[in-house]
Amino acid sequence: MTVAPATSPDPGGSEASPGDPAGPEVQLIDRLRERLEWSPASRSPLAAAVDLASGDDAAVVVPAGAIATSVDLAIESVHFRRSTSSPRAIGHKALAAALSDLAAMGAVPGEAYVQLGLPPDFSEEACLELADGVAALAARHGVAVLGGDVSRAPALTIATTVVGHATTAGELVRRSGARPGDTVCVTGELGGAAAGLALLERPELGAAVSSEQARALRMRQLEPQPRLDAGRALAAGGATAMIDVSDGIGADARHLARAGGVRLEIEEARIPVASGVAEVAAAAGRPPSAFTLDGGEDYELLLTLSPEAVEPAVAALREGGLALSPVGRIASGAGLAVRGESGGAVETAGFDQLRR
Amino acid sequence: MTVAPATSPDPGGSEASPGDPAGPEVQLIDRLRERLEWSPASRSPLAAAVDLASGDDAAVVVPAGAIATSVDLAIESVHFRRSTSSPRAIGHKALAAALSDLAAMGAVPGEAYVQLGLPPDFSEEACLELADGVAALAARHGVAVLGGDVSRAPALTIATTVVGHATTAGELVRRSGARPGDTVCVTGELGGAAAGLALLERPELGAAVSSEQARALRMRQLEPQPRLDAGRALAAGGATAMIDVSDGIGADARHLARAGGVRLEIEEARIPVASGVAEVAAAAGRPPSAFTLDGGEDYELLLTLSPEAVEPAVAALREGGLALSPVGRIASGAGLAVRGESGGAVETAGFDQLRR
Repeated sequence: MTVAPATSPDPGGSEASPGDPAGPEVQLIDRLRERLEWSPASRSPLAAAVDLASGDDAAVVVPAGAIATSVDLAIESVHFRRSTSSPRAIGHKALAAALSDLAAMGAVPGEAYVQLGLPPDFSEEACLELADGVAALAARHGVAVLGGDVSRAPALTIATTVVGHATTAGELVRRSGARPGDTVCVTGELGGAAAGLALLERPELGAAVSSEQARALRMRQLEPQPRLDAGRALAAGGATAMIDVSDGIGADARHLARAGGVRLEIEEARIPVASGVAEVAAAAGRPPSAFTLDGGEDYELLLTLSPEAVEPAVAALREGGLALSPVGRIASGAGLAVRGESGGAVETAGFDQLRR
Repeated sequence: MTVAPATSPDPGGSEASPGDPAGPEVQLIDRLRERLEWSPASRSPLAAAVDLASGDDAAVVVPAGAIATSVDLAIESVHFRRSTSSPRAIGHKALAAALSDLAAMGAVPGEAYVQLGLPPDFSEEACLELADGVAALAARHGVAVLGGDVSRAPALTIATTVVGHATTAGELVRRSGARPGDTVCVTGELGGAAAGLALLERPELGAAVSSEQARALRMRQLEPQPRLDAGRALAAGGATAMIDVSDGIGADARHLARAGGVRLEIEEARIPVASGVAEVAAAAGRPPSAFTLDGGEDYELLLTLSPEAVEPAVAALREGGLALSPVGRIASGAGLAVRGESGGAVETAGFDQLRR
């Protein structure tokens, strides 16, 4: 018997040696890893210690307390279109949607895992741009991208897993804690993401607003910002229940009401509306509530606080430049009630998306 | 102003009230949750305490030590075909492939998160069968399915995240620990999954083996069993490096060699071959090594042990009914060497799949 190497020796230690049959794929994965590098210095001391990052069978971290885990699936033509979203924006938004769930728990963002399904016409360059979008948002929030998977797919697919941390499980804010008498609040402004989508799909609607407003609305749709700092401040400030506004405040308010076994009442006139939304809605021939109540993907936070906790929470968020607006109250009973601006009830439809 | 409920009150507390616009989707998610219910009693005391399961923005667990996290993407026509895999088998295999990575770390399996992309022609009944396949395997290993996401998709897509546990990070076995002089071992038998795939794609090859052999080979392809108990026993028994054989022992052995900065030598004659593989290979006009060395998806474990640790490890695995076979050794140098049965070098190609 002779012994012969099945591949040539690999002096550089790279996985992409010429003799390696997995060469091109491994080269892509190596390049993705480079783009997704993270700095230990950027991470919160409350996040877990990373013992082993990507490149093994699993990543290993050592959490100091409780962990909150959420997953989010983004699929081309269902959640985004390549004709209107850049690869960078697609990567940003996939991670943002997942991190928004951690914001709604009041968790410290820690780690992310990104699974990519790549169609044949999505170039390596586009794939690296997508990774840049993920990496930039991850870096902003001290998130370490610790692993992933890459596969062929018929449509661009991004499955994201994010893990957040808290010293104890009790610090994390559930959907179920709203009690009668609590004040219902929402961060930031609503309707912008849905109006931005309308502008992307019907550019002629842009004539109804200034170019600056149109740009801001499109950015709300394309690159939403997860309210992680606000979520932590609100958890510390006594939020009794919290959810992120991903499916429209109408649908998400119902989730809070149902989880808490309470009735949630919203006054439509008090909903903070992003600049230009009313004009885009009018130009589209739709009521503003189609964007503010039913429009999804604003990724603001909807939460409840005892009335005396509202003012300190407003002040705490103002420091970070984010508004907090009381929009209603919790009563005993069940379901969602919306007081319309004109006095009638408002029908809300939620965002047409299959989600838990 | 009047106040009117935007939806009818929901006396049953179910999310699927007739007035709920998200009705059908929420009903599916509720049914999936029922199918994926898990029993706290089935879980290992070493796994994390579950504080909050699905239905909130994130699941909350409280790990007692280190956690190992792995993700795995399974996409129709890339990783499986609906014409040859039942929905139940597809669900089983998606979770099995992910859990196999935890086996290769020697981790105690703990939690899983399952994201489903559902094409229009995949019925609700099929979706629930898929969930049954996930649930049965999860129950067998004490895994709690704590969350997920459901979306439309052009092709059936399953993105799985699994989390395993260990008291300390140091207990978990890396790919990088192989040292010159170590013995290379593999669990179980190889080639079965690739031979099973050949039988599924060319049923006429079944004439080369008994119907019992053919059935066993197809099951190796359709419903692989992650070697979780073996992985933990091997970690406790001193495994210096470990990886699961998902891409073919040729490709995975290269990963171990590269990660450890060593040379890995395998004697082809010592590779344990599943019953019927040689006959199917001959009938297909291919060398047996196409299935045993290059065939992927056997989900056995490839590992290294100091020579004196081999015999106790063989005995430990025999208790669980699983063989452990020495197949080679670690030397200084780099790369993979395969001693062919006829004395020549063997070309290995690995499994054609984009993976990390």
